[in-house]
Order: sequence, then structure tokens, then C-alpha cells
Amino acid sequence: MSRQGPPRPAARPLTALFDPRSVTVVGASAVPGKWGHILALRALRSCGDRPVVLVNRRGTEVLGHPTRRSIAEARSEVGGPLDLVVVCVPATELLLAVTHALAAGARSLVVITAGLSELGPAGAETEQEAVRLVRAAGAVLVGPNCLGIVDTGSQLQLSHDLLPRGEVSVLSQSGNVVLDLAALLRDRGLGVARFVSLGNQADLSVVDLMETCRHHDQTRAVAIYAEDVVDGRAFVAAGRALVAAGKPVVVLAPGRSASAIRSAVSHTGSLTSASEVVDAACEAAGAHRVDHPTQMADLLQGLLAGRRMPGRRTAILTDGGGHGAIAADALAAVGLGSPVLAEVTRTALRTVLPTGSHVANPVDLAGAGEQDPMRYTRTLATLLAAQEVDGVLLTGYFGGYSTHDSAMAAHEVAAAEAMADIVTAQPKPVAVHTIFPEGPTGRLLRAAGLPVHRDVDRVAAVLAGLVERPADHDDLTLPAPAAPVTDASYEGARRLLGEAGVCFPAARTVHDLGALDAALTADDLGFPLVLKATGRVHKSEGGGVVLGLLDADAVRAAYTRLLVDLNPPAVSVESMVDTSHGVEVIVGSVADPRFGPVLMVGLGGVLTEVLSDTALAIAPVSEARARRLLLSLRGAPLLLGARGRDPVDLGALAQVVSRVSYVAAAHPELAEVELNPVLAGTSGAVALDARVVLRR
Amino acid sequence: MSRQGPPRPAARPLTALFDPRSVTVVGASAVPGKWGHILALRALRSCGDRPVVLVNRRGTEVLGHPTRRSIAEARSEVGGPLDLVVVCVPATELLLAVTHALAAGARSLVVITAGLSELGPAGAETEQEAVRLVRAAGAVLVGPNCLGIVDTGSQLQLSHDLLPRGEVSVLSQSGNVVLDLAALLRDRGLGVARFVSLGNQADLSVVDLMETCRHHDQTRAVAIYAEDVVDGRAFVAAGRALVAAGKPVVVLAPGRSASAIRSAVSHTGSLTSASEVVDAACEAAGAHRVDHPTQMADLLQGLLAGRRMPGRRTAILTDGGGHGAIAADALAAVGLGSPVLAEVTRTALRTVLPTGSHVANPVDLAGAGEQDPMRYTRTLATLLAAQEVDGVLLTGYFGGYSTHDSAMAAHEVAAAEAMADIVTAQPKPVAVHTIFPEGPTGRLLRAAGLPVHRDVDRVAAVLAGLVERPADHDDLTLPAPAAPVTDASYEGARRLLGEAGVCFPAARTVHDLGALDAALTADDLGFPLVLKATGRVHKSEGGGVVLGLLDADAVRAAYTRLLVDLNPPAVSVESMVDTSHGVEVIVGSVADPRFGPVLMVGLGGVLTEVLSDTALAIAPVSEARARRLLLSLRGAPLLLGARGRDPVDLGALAQVVSRVSYVAAAHPELAEVELNPVLAGTSGAVALDARVVLRR
Repeated sequence: MSRQGPPRPAARPLTALFDPRSVTVVGASAVPGKWGHILALRALRSCGDRPVVLVNRRGTEVLGHPTRRSIAEARSEVGGPLDLVVVCVPATELLLAVTHALAAGARSLVVITAGLSELGPAGAETEQEAVRLVRAAGAVLVGPNCLGIVDTGSQLQLSHDLLPRGEVSVLSQSGNVVLDLAALLRDRGLGVARFVSLGNQADLSVVDLMETCRHHDQTRAVAIYAEDVVDGRAFVAAGRALVAAGKPVVVLAPGRSASAIRSAVSHTGSLTSASEVVDAACEAAGAHRVDHPTQMADLLQGLLAGRRMPGRRTAILTDGGGHGAIAADALAAVGLGSPVLAEVTRTALRTVLPTGSHVANPVDLAGAGEQDPMRYTRTLATLLAAQEVDGVLLTGYFGGYSTHDSAMAAHEVAAAEAMADIVTAQPKPVAVHTIFPEGPTGRLLRAAGLPVHRDVDRVAAVLAGLVERPADHDDLTLPAPAAPVTDASYEGARRLLGEAGVCFPAARTVHDLGALDAALTADDLGFPLVLKATGRVHKSEGGGVVLGLLDADAVRAAYTRLLVDLNPPAVSVESMVDTSHGVEVIVGSVADPRFGPVLMVGLGGVLTEVLSDTALAIAPVSEARARRLLLSLRGAPLLLGARGRDPVDLGALAQVVSRVSYVAAAHPELAEVELNPVLAGTSGAVALDARVVLRR
Repeated sequence: MSRQGPPRPAARPLTALFDPRSVTVVGASAVPGKWGHILALRALRSCGDRPVVLVNRRGTEVLGHPTRRSIAEARSEVGGPLDLVVVCVPATELLLAVTHALAAGARSLVVITAGLSELGPAGAETEQEAVRLVRAAGAVLVGPNCLGIVDTGSQLQLSHDLLPRGEVSVLSQSGNVVLDLAALLRDRGLGVARFVSLGNQADLSVVDLMETCRHHDQTRAVAIYAEDVVDGRAFVAAGRALVAAGKPVVVLAPGRSASAIRSAVSHTGSLTSASEVVDAACEAAGAHRVDHPTQMADLLQGLLAGRRMPGRRTAILTDGGGHGAIAADALAAVGLGSPVLAEVTRTALRTVLPTGSHVANPVDLAGAGEQDPMRYTRTLATLLAAQEVDGVLLTGYFGGYSTHDSAMAAHEVAAAEAMADIVTAQPKPVAVHTIFPEGPTGRLLRAAGLPVHRDVDRVAAVLAGLVERPADHDDLTLPAPAAPVTDASYEGARRLLGEAGVCFPAARTVHDLGALDAALTADDLGFPLVLKATGRVHKSEGGGVVLGLLDADAVRAAYTRLLVDLNPPAVSVESMVDTSHGVEVIVGSVADPRFGPVLMVGLGGVLTEVLSDTALAIAPVSEARARRLLLSLRGAPLLLGARGRDPVDLGALAQVVSRVSYVAAAHPELAEVELNPVLAGTSGAVALDARVVLRR
């Protein structure tokens, strides 16, 4: 779960990184377009009052500024130990530069140099050596293969472009994505607190930097672009800690498509997890996952405003039927509802609006707003006061009067001001779609912390991101490893999971006819019986499972046939379970390279195999979480009694799921654990097959 | 399928509507904000050189312009018959105004007046009478409850706001949505050819206006906001005719959510069809369905540029790994692929790009574009020339050099110019995501017809809309009605569908024990047999279906029990079909109020009932279309042999589907036809149950 490398020291102070006494750029270049040029430019112009020294081995002047030929000379110029050193030398010169920088007292290194672990083993070796040197010296290293760092609070901007000052800290494995995001934040009146280009995360990882964000006052939200989180468990823990500290975490992690995974592997040499695992990790961390920078910026804006939807019930306030209906669909597309308002609310709305207005939801002002813009305000106040309303989407023309109609402008702006007062005085969010987002009312509402957008789908997406989520309190700390499993046979799998409390049908493993006859007299085995040939991944293939054997002769005949046809290492003789009244469920766990054991549940057969209707969670999971996971399946109605069946014993099923997750968590030597199927009945749940796979 | 009302005359010339000799506004008002004021303003200022007469019954001056007290006086002022009359009077005065306008020679009426059929039966009666008068006079009427019309070509702008001139004709049931769309089109350098606010569509319907668009040269695409298409079959036919004439049709029809449906019903009093039916209608028409105005404007822009994706294989050209991966996910989200490029293409790309560049797809310029922007151009040319590439998405920083770096600006603009030349010389689309859409290169590429957007999801959505679709050539003309079905019994349903060529198991309907005994000797009925109690919607409820009867005694005993327990009108004795080797499919048709018979297919059991995995089509459908419909199901892999099964006889199954659709199409008296299930085997398909429901 953790990349090979030198042991990581305990938390080191990062003051030298974000607020250094001096900045030295090694590999400063006079050639525009080169990184050594870009960083020299930023160091000279965007580092506040700090002393800046440029090192160029030929001593060439850079940007009209003299350079030093060596790091040692730079130390002389600073007149004491260096603090932050930016390294822009070729990969072949990296170790020398690191050695010299550390010798000159550097406490932190930002290594722009590329062509290291991302290109293969030789580069990885150099990278490891550099990290070893840095850690031995008690220093820290960002990168290599990174694009710099920024701390707008300490006036340190050591990156490609200048970033606007603000409250979002950005941790990213892509430089261009950060430029994209920064521009989007600026457009929304937001900015960046700190930015770290993660690069190869050879020393400081995204997790280390998340932890520093937690203690950084200027940081009020954290935006992460990550193709590889390296230590998944620590990532989840760091995310939870940030969220608990009131700093929302928004994660942009491409990888939903095969092509994105290919791209990430070639881009940063990442070891990627399945996208569904990343979803599960974000869920466990309480982080928000987004798909592109615009969605990220929109959501950050909404989250920073602080208001949250207690639930998913959204009131739509429109000034035209068309926009109301379109907004309703946009809400539904992101999983929000716009149900009919309570009678008490509709009655209150009728006192505010002209007779005949539609007050069910959408609430349609129709012409009423045109005559008196304060009607928007009064309607909004009524909706926010309604108990059954978790948030409001205002959609349509509002903002147009002050844009197009000078006579109406003052009235509309006054209405918007009153709206802003009402919204800021209470906790529910109001998001605005308008044809005129850049007009006076749009600016005014945005300044009051309301998301205001030109496109209704963006507004709906923000509201969906503001829905409060039940905090997941499951302890994800992996338990101390149990005695390692060495027997990965069917019998061994049954024993392991049986001891953990999973129910199986009575069974005997037999290796010869004598043992078979003994089994047939066992009290706990009753006809009909089942025979299963063991030793293969899919027991039923090639007739390896024989069902419904009604007497001893039939069992013996079937056993003999199995030996002849398949010659299995052993045969399991089991009581047969009637599967016609119950729901088959798959419960499994797979060891993810980054996140460790990840639990999977799905409904058996078609739903899992053809429609991939499965749900994942970082293991272990409590029974309560297991229940939520099962109910999140699209096919969950089957568990609850769809199609005229009785509901299954969800408690027993959740218990099996939780137990499997704890077995997986306690056995790091297992690559896979699977019960397929578990038969969930109206009372109890029994596993009909079990499988474990040892890690190679 | 068609709203009750006076018979609609054959096509009437609409010159008087879109290019009238004169304009008269009846109900012109001096009160700002009133529709009679807004329309008077537009008539005076935005009607070209046409004579304009305002009618106000008090003769009050409006906007400094004298008014006439009556329509007759207006006729005198025009000095001959009126042509276009805009009616803004209260509902109570509508019939009088219409009568006088027609008497004064009006050939077309645009009725703004609201409070008619949308409010209930009394208003509907007035509305019908107005239409009767208009049709009797050979005139046409737009509305009532509409917001006006625009023809930018003839310089006629009779609506709330001035619309930009362009090539998109907009037919809409919402005024604000049109303002929204018009602003979005203007932002994209596009505009409106004609706009008609449809209102209640009492006389001229969306279909009539679609037909006029077909013959209107300035119109190159049609955008429709419709909550109710009134005559669904004619809508599909008119859509097909527009598409065949090279004029794409984009439909915004909210109704995916319950709340949107509620809104539409209250907004225009519409009789809405299920959203899936609207999808099927758009599919049959070759029209594009969108969810909100922004998506509509984006798609119209892409469609008007003319280039199409022959398939779904998209090459991603990026200048950073992060943006490439994000774009890959964005494409996947809209159903486009970005597969690995062919070796020949990768080889060609390696000659264009520096060693080590990623050329698989995404193709990543990394730093290479920064050094020489022409590399973007050469890479793009190589991708467009590749046979396996259907279109290209360019994503990332391109456009930033000319925005931020004066030294690079000229190079980047030259590269963009060369790109524009390459793209316009070939048929595949290129769409651009850039952080700098408003920079010189963005403007240049947009002017050349490339969609250029700030947000990558918008770019992906446009490309998805540009994928060429197989033309659906099924003849949707309803066949002449067959002899009406009167027997809606189980036996009648079997007979009707059996005669149409659907296979059923052998069966006899019996009403007494004697008939049962006779049935038991029938040659075509072999054991095991099934008994079904008829006369109820769900035969199996309460034990009404008895399976697996192995001999005559068992059949007689079961029959007696059925009589005692359920007393059914008849019992069907049928050969039992082995359902263990086959896939159960539901095939049905429901009469939609707007679109007539709509066919539905779904996979039996869980998939249809719990996951709603069904597909719809306007009936009738050919066997080829039926096959495509079946293969569009999420569970289609089951038909093709998933989970180790043999593939089913798709030809036989498609034949059943097609035959059901023709039965439904020929029997307008049927509200529903259903075969549930049809058992599709490896050879043939047999219907195990049948049901028809007569319309009330």
C-alpha cells in the first residue's frame, strides 16, 4: 500500500517550504520557455522581500540579474545557510545539486527536474537516492517532476503563472489543471491559499501536504488533482481530519475510462486504483469527487459559502413555466428532488403571490415578478422558512430587469439585496440560474455567497454537492494482522470465514469413498445433498457441482463420476439449501494496491455480472455501513421485497458483509476473499460458496 | 392522438404571418410592462417599413403614437384589408376582436391573450370558437397565450425582446426559454431566423411551423421547446422531413422528472407523454433531444458547422497529461470512446513529436507545443487523416501563449490559422476545450466553425451530438385499421397475435370437465401440461397458474381446484415449455395519447421490474429496428450469450417484436398489447402469455 522507498520520518516542519527566509534557484536559465527561466523569473518577481539567488554554472546573467556559478557561492551571497532551494537541473545532475544544496543548509527542496521515476527504474534509483539524502539531512523535498509551489499568504509564488490569492489550497499532479482551476476560481471571486505541484511525490506526498493544510489558517478548503494517492489509507484519514476541521476536500481524480487510466499511467507512471475504489475512498474520507475543473471550482465556491442542504428536497422558484420544468429535470439528473410543497407552505405562498399562481413546486411567479420584483424576495423567504425545503433553486429571468429596463432596475436590485440578507441570515443554500449572471443582481448575489450561474445544470450540480452527508464513523484503521492464512483451499476458506461467524451449510470434505460413507451418516448432513469438486476457481464448470442428490446411492454414483471426470483434490459433501426463496448476494474483498482491502457487494447473477450493479467500500465496514452499502445497489428493491417477495433479513446479511470485511482487513496476505453467493433469506443468511486467494 | 377541435384545413400560406404588408396591434396599451405595451413598442420600432396601426378602445396615445378606437378604423388607416393582427385584449374580448379583425381582412392573427384553454373548459370553448372563425375565413392563428413571432429575414420582431439575426428557427412554448436561448446563440455568433411562441397551439401547431421551416431558406436548423407536440405522428414526420432536407432538429422537452411533468401540466395545460416516449419519437424523427438551453445552443453551433463524426472514436490532443485524462473521462461520460490509435498513426505521430511523447491516445504534446505551436497543427492533421479517428478533442492550454506571452503570440495564432484551414478542408469535427476561449486563437477557431469552450464536458457533449446516426427508414404511417378487436380475453389475445405470426404453445380453452377431457386427447397437447385460470390481469396471482401437470388425473384435480378457488370464466390447458434454457423477454405496446402505439421491449423479471431496463420505439417497427432495440438494452449481453449461455435466436425474437408492433398499429382500439414473457431460445421464440386491453 505504500511505495517502496526510504522510511519516512515523522512530521517535519514545513516553514522552510512555504515561508522560507531565502530562495535559491539552481539551474536558472537565460533561455525563455525553459523551466529554469520561468522559475528564475518568479523567484525574482514574486517572492516578496526575500533574498533570491540564481545559480547558473556558466555564471550567465538571467533576466538582467547576476548569477552564481555554484551553490556554495550562493551560500556566501545569502551569508548563511540556504533555506528553500528550487532545483531545475537536468536529471543527470540532480544528485550533485541535492548534495550541494543540503551541504549549504537547505531545509526544503522543490525539484522541477523531470526524467526520474516516471521514466523507469534507472530514474527511480536516482530519485530514491535524492530522497535518502534529503531525509538524512532532516530536510523535505517536493517533486521531482513538479512545477513548483505557491503560498499566497507568505507572498511566495514559485510556479509557472501567478495565482490569485484566496482560501483554497491546491495539491496537484498536473500543472495545466491548476492553471485551469486557478482561472476558474478567479472568475468566481476566489483564489488560492497554497499550491503544491506534487510531481512524483518521492518525499512529500499528497497526504503530508493535506496534513499541513489542516493547520494552515488561510486554507478553508482543499482541492486535489491526483492520479495516484500513494498511501490510500493515510489519504482517507487525512481527508477525514480536514473535513472534521471544517475544511471541505474536493478531489479530481480521472480514471473512470480506460483511456484516462492509460493516460495517468503514462503521465505520472501512477499505479492507479479502479475508479470505483477511489469513489469508495472519497466517500470514506467525506471528500467530494468531481470530474473536471469547472465542476471543482463551482463546488468549492458553494462549499466555501458554508450553507448546506440538510436533505435533497429542493424548491424551484421560477418566473416562467419552461425554466421551472427544465430546472426540475436538472435537479433530478443529479439526484435531487423537487417534491410538492406542504399545504401550509402553499397557503403561505398564496398570500404572497397573485391568485392562480402555481405554488406546488416549481413555484412559478409567471408575470408577478415583472410587476413587483419584491415578490421574488417574499417567495424566497417563504420557501426558506418551509420545513420541507432543504434548499432553493432560483431560475430564469431574474437579473434581466436591471440589465434591460432602467425603470425597473432599482426595484430589482433592492429585491436582490433583500434576498441576500434573507439567505445569509439562515443556513439553507440558495443557488441561482439566470440569463443575466453578470448583471448587477448577479454580482450582488454572488458577493453574498450565492452560486450564480448562466447554466442550470451547473446550479443543480452545486446544490447536489451541498447536501449534508451522514458522517462515516467506521474505524478504517487496519486491525493487527491475524495469524496468516496458508490454506487457500475451499475447506480452508470455509473454516476461516466460518470462524469469523459466517454461516455455511453443513459439509464434509472427503478424499475417498470411505470418508464419503462416513459423511453420509453424519447427523448434521441431511438429504438432499450436494457434491462439489474442489481445486478449481469455478467449481461448477465442467459439471463440478452436482445438486439434489436424494439418497446415498445417488451420492456415491455422483462421487465416482466426479473422480473419473475431474479428478479433484477433494470433494465437499454438503447439505443442499433451497435457493428458490431468497436473494443471492455476492460479498467479496480485493486487496487494492493503494487502499488495501476493499469490500464489494452485489446482487447475484445478472445484476452483478451483466449490469455491474455493485457497491464498494474501504474495509473494514460496520454492520450499519454494510446495510447502507447493500441499500445503495440499484437492485436493492429485491432485498426489500420487490416482486411480491418477503423482504430478506437485512441485519443478518449486513452482518455477513461486515464479517467478511474484517476477515479481509485482518489478513493482508489475502489478495481476495469471496462468498458467492450468500443466500439471504427472510431469516438469516447462509454462504453457499467461499474462496480466498493468497497474494503472490 | 389529435386534440379535439375544428378540422384543420390543408396547408395555408403563411406569408401574412412572417412577412405581412401591415401590422395592427389590437389592445395596444400605454402602461409599461403590459403585453399590449410591449407589442406596441415592438410593432412601432422593429417592423421594418411596414405600416403599423395601434388599436386602443379609448384612443389613448401609446408611446407618443396615436391610436384608433376600433379595428374598423384601423382598416381605414391602412387603406385596405389588414394583414397581420396582434391581439392583446382580455380573454373576454377575444371573440369580438377576432371577428372584427377577420372582417377587416386579417389573414393572420398572433394572439397574446391568455386565460383560455390553459385555464379550463370555459376558456377552451372560447378558444375553439376563435379557431373556427379563423379557419372559416381562411386565415391562421398563432397562440393564444403566446408571446409573439419574429422573422429576422423580413425584419419583423413582434416579441418581448429583440432577437439576433441568424439561421436557427425557434418554435417554443416558453417565452423566457427563448430569451435564454437567443442570448446563448448570440454569445456563440449565431442567431434566429424565425421565432414563433407556440402558446396553446389552438390553430397553428408546432408541426405546421416545422413544415414552414423546411421551405424557409434562411432556416438552417430548428430548435423546439415543446411541452406538448399535440400530434405526435405528424411531429415525427415533420422532423424527418426537416432532417432529410439537411436541417437538423434539436428538441428541448422537459419531463424526465415528475416535477417537470407537474410543471408542464400547470404551465400549458399540456397532455404530456412519458419522457421515454419523447426520446423514442426524437429517435424516430432523427432529432436531437437536449436537457437545457446551454446544451441546445452548443449543439446547434456544432450542427450548423456541418462536420459529423462517422463513429464514436475520438482522438484526444492535449498539452498536459491531466487534461488528457479528464477529457477521456468526459468523452466516456457521453458515450464516446478514445481507443488506442493504430500503429500506423502512432508511427506518423512519432515523426511529428519529440521522442518519448505519448502517442497512444490521449496524444500528449507535453512541453512540445510550448516550443513550437505548429506541433499542435501537425499533430491535429495526422489525427484527422487517421482512418480510425472519427473526430478530435483538443484540450488544455492552447490559446494561452497568445493571451499571456507576446513573444509566442504570432506563432500560436499562425498555428491556429493553419488548424482552421486543415479542419475546414475535411469532414470530421474538431472541438476545443481551452483555458483561454476568448483569446485570439479561440475567436479564430470559433469563426472557422469549431466549437471552442471553457469547459471540457461541454466540448464532449457537442462531439457526442455530432455522431452520425443510422437513418431510421421504418415507415411510421399507421396502417389502415384492421377489423376491430372486440374479444379482449386471453383466448382472443392469443388468436389475434397468433394470426399475426407469433408462436404460442399448443392450448385449448375449456369451460367444463368434458371439454377438459377432450383437450387431454388432443394430438398437439403433450404432458407436462399447464392450467391457467383466465379472466384476471395477473393469471398467476392466487395460484391461478398450475405448472408441471404430468398426467390426466393431475390435470383434472388441478382443474377442479381452480374452479373451487377462483371460479374463472375459462381455463386454458397448455403444453408446458421448458423455460430453463432461454431468456424471458417482455414485448408490449401502449397507446400514447400523443404518439399512438408505442412499442416496449425489456428483459423479463428483475431487469424490467426492478431496474426499468426497457427500450421504446414508435410502432410499427421493422425486424431490423426491433433487433437494434433489443440490443440497446443494458441487459442485451444476456441475449448474446453472457454467463456461458448460447446466444438466443435474435432473428426470431425480433420478428415477434415487429409483429406485435404491427398488430398494435393496426388496432387503434387497443390501449395495450402485451406478451409477457416471450421465451427466446437458441432456435425460435415462443410467447408464454398474451394480453390485450381495449380502450375505454
